[in-house]
Amino acid sequence: MIFLKDNVLLERDLRLEDVKPRLLGHWGTCPGIILIWSHLNLLIRESSVDMLFVVGPGHGAPAALACLWLEGSLERFYPDKYPANKEGLHNLITKFSVPGGFPSHINPETPGCIHEGGELGYALSVSFGAVMDNPDLIVACVVGDGEAETGPTAAAWHSIKYLDPAESGAVIPILHVNGFKISERTIFGCMDNKELVLLFSGYGYQVCIVENLESIDAELYSALFWALGEIKRIQNGAREGNPITKPRWPMIILRSPKGWTGPRTVDNQIIEGSFHAHQVPVAKANKDEEHLRILQEWLKSYEVQELLANGKPSQDLLDILPEDTKRLGQLKTAYDCYRGLDLPDWNPHAVKKFEQASSMQQSGKFLDSVAKKNMHTFRIFSPDELESNKLSAVLDHSGRNFQWDQYSRAQGGRVIEILSEHCCQGFLQGYTLTGRTAIFPSYESFLGIIHTMMIQYAKFSKIGRKLSWRGDLSSINYIETSTWARQEHNGFSHQNPSFIGAVLNLKADTARVYLPPDANCFLSTVHHCLKSKNYVNLMIGSKQPTPVYLSAEDAMEHCKKGISIWKFASTYSGEDPDVILVGIGVEVTFEVIKAAELLAKLAPELRVRVINVTDLLVLPDESHHPHALKPKDFEEIFTLDKPVCFNYHSYATELQGLLFGRPALHRMTVEGYKEEGSTTTPFDMMLVNGVSRFHVASRALKASASQNDAVQDQLSALLSKVDEDMAKVQDYIKENGKDPEDIYKLDFMGAKA
Amino acid sequence: MIFLKDNVLLERDLRLEDVKPRLLGHWGTCPGIILIWSHLNLLIRESSVDMLFVVGPGHGAPAALACLWLEGSLERFYPDKYPANKEGLHNLITKFSVPGGFPSHINPETPGCIHEGGELGYALSVSFGAVMDNPDLIVACVVGDGEAETGPTAAAWHSIKYLDPAESGAVIPILHVNGFKISERTIFGCMDNKELVLLFSGYGYQVCIVENLESIDAELYSALFWALGEIKRIQNGAREGNPITKPRWPMIILRSPKGWTGPRTVDNQIIEGSFHAHQVPVAKANKDEEHLRILQEWLKSYEVQELLANGKPSQDLLDILPEDTKRLGQLKTAYDCYRGLDLPDWNPHAVKKFEQASSMQQSGKFLDSVAKKNMHTFRIFSPDELESNKLSAVLDHSGRNFQWDQYSRAQGGRVIEILSEHCCQGFLQGYTLTGRTAIFPSYESFLGIIHTMMIQYAKFSKIGRKLSWRGDLSSINYIETSTWARQEHNGFSHQNPSFIGAVLNLKADTARVYLPPDANCFLSTVHHCLKSKNYVNLMIGSKQPTPVYLSAEDAMEHCKKGISIWKFASTYSGEDPDVILVGIGVEVTFEVIKAAELLAKLAPELRVRVINVTDLLVLPDESHHPHALKPKDFEEIFTLDKPVCFNYHSYATELQGLLFGRPALHRMTVEGYKEEGSTTTPFDMMLVNGVSRFHVASRALKASASQNDAVQDQLSALLSKVDEDMAKVQDYIKENGKDPEDIYKLDFMGAKA
Repeated sequence: MIFLKDNVLLERDLRLEDVKPRLLGHWGTCPGIILIWSHLNLLIRESSVDMLFVVGPGHGAPAALACLWLEGSLERFYPDKYPANKEGLHNLITKFSVPGGFPSHINPETPGCIHEGGELGYALSVSFGAVMDNPDLIVACVVGDGEAETGPTAAAWHSIKYLDPAESGAVIPILHVNGFKISERTIFGCMDNKELVLLFSGYGYQVCIVENLESIDAELYSALFWALGEIKRIQNGAREGNPITKPRWPMIILRSPKGWTGPRTVDNQIIEGSFHAHQVPVAKANKDEEHLRILQEWLKSYEVQELLANGKPSQDLLDILPEDTKRLGQLKTAYDCYRGLDLPDWNPHAVKKFEQASSMQQSGKFLDSVAKKNMHTFRIFSPDELESNKLSAVLDHSGRNFQWDQYSRAQGGRVIEILSEHCCQGFLQGYTLTGRTAIFPSYESFLGIIHTMMIQYAKFSKIGRKLSWRGDLSSINYIETSTWARQEHNGFSHQNPSFIGAVLNLKADTARVYLPPDANCFLSTVHHCLKSKNYVNLMIGSKQPTPVYLSAEDAMEHCKKGISIWKFASTYSGEDPDVILVGIGVEVTFEVIKAAELLAKLAPELRVRVINVTDLLVLPDESHHPHALKPKDFEEIFTLDKPVCFNYHSYATELQGLLFGRPALHRMTVEGYKEEGSTTTPFDMMLVNGVSRFHVASRALKASASQNDAVQDQLSALLSKVDEDMAKVQDYIKENGKDPEDIYKLDFMGAKA
Repeated sequence: MIFLKDNVLLERDLRLEDVKPRLLGHWGTCPGIILIWSHLNLLIRESSVDMLFVVGPGHGAPAALACLWLEGSLERFYPDKYPANKEGLHNLITKFSVPGGFPSHINPETPGCIHEGGELGYALSVSFGAVMDNPDLIVACVVGDGEAETGPTAAAWHSIKYLDPAESGAVIPILHVNGFKISERTIFGCMDNKELVLLFSGYGYQVCIVENLESIDAELYSALFWALGEIKRIQNGAREGNPITKPRWPMIILRSPKGWTGPRTVDNQIIEGSFHAHQVPVAKANKDEEHLRILQEWLKSYEVQELLANGKPSQDLLDILPEDTKRLGQLKTAYDCYRGLDLPDWNPHAVKKFEQASSMQQSGKFLDSVAKKNMHTFRIFSPDELESNKLSAVLDHSGRNFQWDQYSRAQGGRVIEILSEHCCQGFLQGYTLTGRTAIFPSYESFLGIIHTMMIQYAKFSKIGRKLSWRGDLSSINYIETSTWARQEHNGFSHQNPSFIGAVLNLKADTARVYLPPDANCFLSTVHHCLKSKNYVNLMIGSKQPTPVYLSAEDAMEHCKKGISIWKFASTYSGEDPDVILVGIGVEVTFEVIKAAELLAKLAPELRVRVINVTDLLVLPDESHHPHALKPKDFEEIFTLDKPVCFNYHSYATELQGLLFGRPALHRMTVEGYKEEGSTTTPFDMMLVNGVSRFHVASRALKASASQNDAVQDQLSALLSKVDEDMAKVQDYIKENGKDPEDIYKLDFMGAKA
């Protein structure tokens, strides 16, 4: 696949023109993957288990594709392009890694795949996520010794401690040690067997090492059957009511040379068993006769003409395959098993208008009701922040699923709390990709830890949705709380709203960002997100009690539109405004409302319109997002020429970028979090980041002076008044170490004007 | 510190009004940190080692601050505020975690600290970075059992394998197992001693467990001296030419109850030894008399009036301290030891104008010369991508520093390649924070893995720079290559330019983003960055040979300005333009130049100005960045009204956000990477993302029609011509699986017009 563009069965001697002009692909990891793949199909055949194969070394695509073609799975999903005959084989090989063919990394176009084969480190946690609540599923997961150096993999070995053998399936981890990364030896390749056995025994595994190249088939066969036996033993115990404490799950370490069976040397350089085997071992096969000769000799060594006579796999090869639907490329769990949620109504948890409520506490109650109705299809993954994020009502009818020692054998718990965002995200992905629904609540500042994983997932989802044979999936759902705007116990290190930007960079048909302004809107949003499909949903809210502005019904309406003029907070009901104030995010919206109150007192003639945006993606230009406001609607809300002051939860430039293309940007100002703050009072955080009511009011006065004569006339006096008020509050905080109590009182003065 | 706002020495019975109105802070981890701190000072006193203490559980600030006050380090750096007397103690306690006092997490204001105590997972790798090339330094590093669950920590245990005992110092890792996170048991707390010893022996350590609470002082004392002895044994061997293969470095596991010595129970809830001890154990001490009583009893148990009579630490306490400058808070290595680089000239590696060169190959040669001149103050950390990124010339006079088995005992190598971006970043931070300079080259797509670490570092740097007693530091330097624009072996999963956005969110006095258009500009930029201080420098370039547009001298000038009109690529020398084309990034700039060529042929009357931006931060509004163009300069380059077509390397919204505030945005269009692509040809990547010459030319024609009558008259014919040309290339790629050869030829047609 890396080399040939013709003569794929070597029916005549290779010529330079049989070789592709650009030699792209990764050879080194392939032999190991093919070896494992073949044995797994045999295992399935002999034991009838339901099995998926997650391949960590994703650039081993040629191995996966070869096996998939051999087992007929490519024909199943691509009958025209890759049938199990000479033409299909020709296409597979010649189109590999060229435009229109399979790419050089495993991706959703690869049947059986539930893991984007790009960024390394996540194969193991994704595998564990897939088997949760799938009691009959076994995922074999190969982890390369390069990938094994990553932190996310190093943490994910602990995942067995979160696996209930009664309710969930199992993973057979296979650490493939071939000794080399791209150009350097690997850590695990330099560890001897004693070290490896110690390490993985410490993690809690029973280790079986497969390394004798002479008898590798027998060894691997035995190892896999042993692993399956151990899994059954652990599962049977748990399922029969006699769970084993600290069950020692099996794992396999496979040692084989990098690029095994490839050329020994090329140009006097060792290839097989060295890092030179990583990508293209015979680099000049398209222009150097000697290289071409080496290539031919190498390829001939596989006896393709016997094994694939006339492009048909020989009976020997077919004999080890399980029945169609059980082959590694064809288990429905990998591609079409969306189960959806039976979603309860959120209205019982709605809060009365103008009361105070924590969005998180109310959502916790709702999520508890979701968990109760969906005991095997819904999970919450959290990095030990559930209590802190005030979502603990989800534990009312469920528990934490931690399985290790005798004190922690919680059963059936819907919540997993491991202090590894990477594991949480990997579990979430595996769980979602196999048809279920999950939610990942996090401190706002630390969700960025898995920003690139989320992007990898979104890439998988984007390609997957284009394939007719892949079914829908639940969205992946994030809740961010404990935001920079309410720091309490924490400080500067806990301030980082950048995950919003990461989601905004995704394709428009995937990215969804919500900043519901109150508990009712948050409930409506969570409900909507859990029901939605194929998105990346990010919801941001407060865990502290904050005012509820909208009734349940109005909240639903507001969330549906994504943006509304809030007449109750505006002066003159927001009609014919001199200036428009926009809040996006809980605390900054509160400041906008307070700014409107302040302005109503200071300059009662000023016509102030207050807007809240709950769905961030109504703002960009129509061509950029399906939720975007049509020009007419944008004009109705923002006018075409009045000054607009945005008070935004995240970084200003982010919102500025979104607004680009909207009319008359010069009338708009945007303020947001600007990397200021420490452990301080909530209101001080508004002050130091320039998003307080005083800042908004000042901006509004300056901007609207040209619109309103009264303001124009006394502008400097008004501004001084605002500054004075602000200084008073600043002094109070400095003296008392807390915010003035009345700062959180809401008069809705605006509405009265 | 968490509780009192008065009566800090308990000179009378506590009253409710002695207690702070908001009780903020984390108690649970503190007793362990104080215990270790005290023993470390004793160890230093008795052995005269140079030692730093890196505290993973950063929310243990009260423990660190208490020790620092006791040892006089707070007085040293804050003589007015925190003297070692009653007043200083009063300030320390009453101001803790309130505005103006120390925050509740360890941060740069904490003397002796080299690690932001926020996001968990990085203490260990930072510690190892600090001891590299510091042969006499020992860093004691406490890792909490919460932090130990993170991936980055799990990977960092392997760091000993990259530590040369001859040239570097050592780390004493202390895993502090107290059993609980915020609200859940920890993984390590549930592992028994056998499991822990197996695990860490597997990593390569000798393990000593300290757990007997009755004799904890004796045990910890012995353990630390044992660890020091083992370190000396390993170091002496290596330094005397008899290095030990696979030296088993010492580590300590300390088991002690969470919140040890705190209240046993409050309101019938267990506190000591449970997760309830995590933050504020007596939550209502400011309003409940019973809670107040518990608090008083608890605080009295420490005999403060004897140990701190009249606010002076007793002689017993002072007797265990080492000399001033060796105390944990005062070793200069932690706060003021910038050593800078002896930087060679980059001109010997410059390339002749209009030749082709790889920015990375040339930079590799320059970095080699830097390494040669700075054998103990410069390092390169890379996740096994040095060869692939074509920077391997740095290995010409150096090697990879990998230390484990007998085949890998490279000595003095300036390069560390571990396939863990988290470790690379941690090493980089520790190395830089102790006065040296490092660079982290990476695939563009995977640098985002450490995006939040970089932000934590920038937060540390921001606060640190405000402190007069902290000296300058080198910048942290990133090179991104193997960008989305040249995918070669990889595909969609390897496309992610989002790290630019992460840097742009930093404070303006820190953020620096460069996209040098050719090898000479890249050399000039690397040179500049290595010389700079206190920034986060991000440099993005190509590893493939690309045209060199500027002589060394011109490159220097261009980089100094950050932006220039490229007359040679413009028509009419770029004067009085009808339309302005802007390239930001290597490949997209090439497309801009080719678009200008195309336009010169199609519409020779059209006056096209070509601009390159190499310093991204010249673009935002003047008030937003020190590099920003002044309005007059902006106008000179961009005019006030001519259409401007930006062709940008990263996401369009990012650049749009930066441009906000510049005049007449409606005339500007921005295109950039838009999450499209697979394993395909380089030019196809330009096509599918809409940034090819054809796209630029079309945009330019449409935008300039109103400026130029000739274009206006034949607009649709011109656009069809461009579309035809594009279709031809698309067809060629589809048919041949490669780009047409002439697509990379540069005629500088524009210059001829």
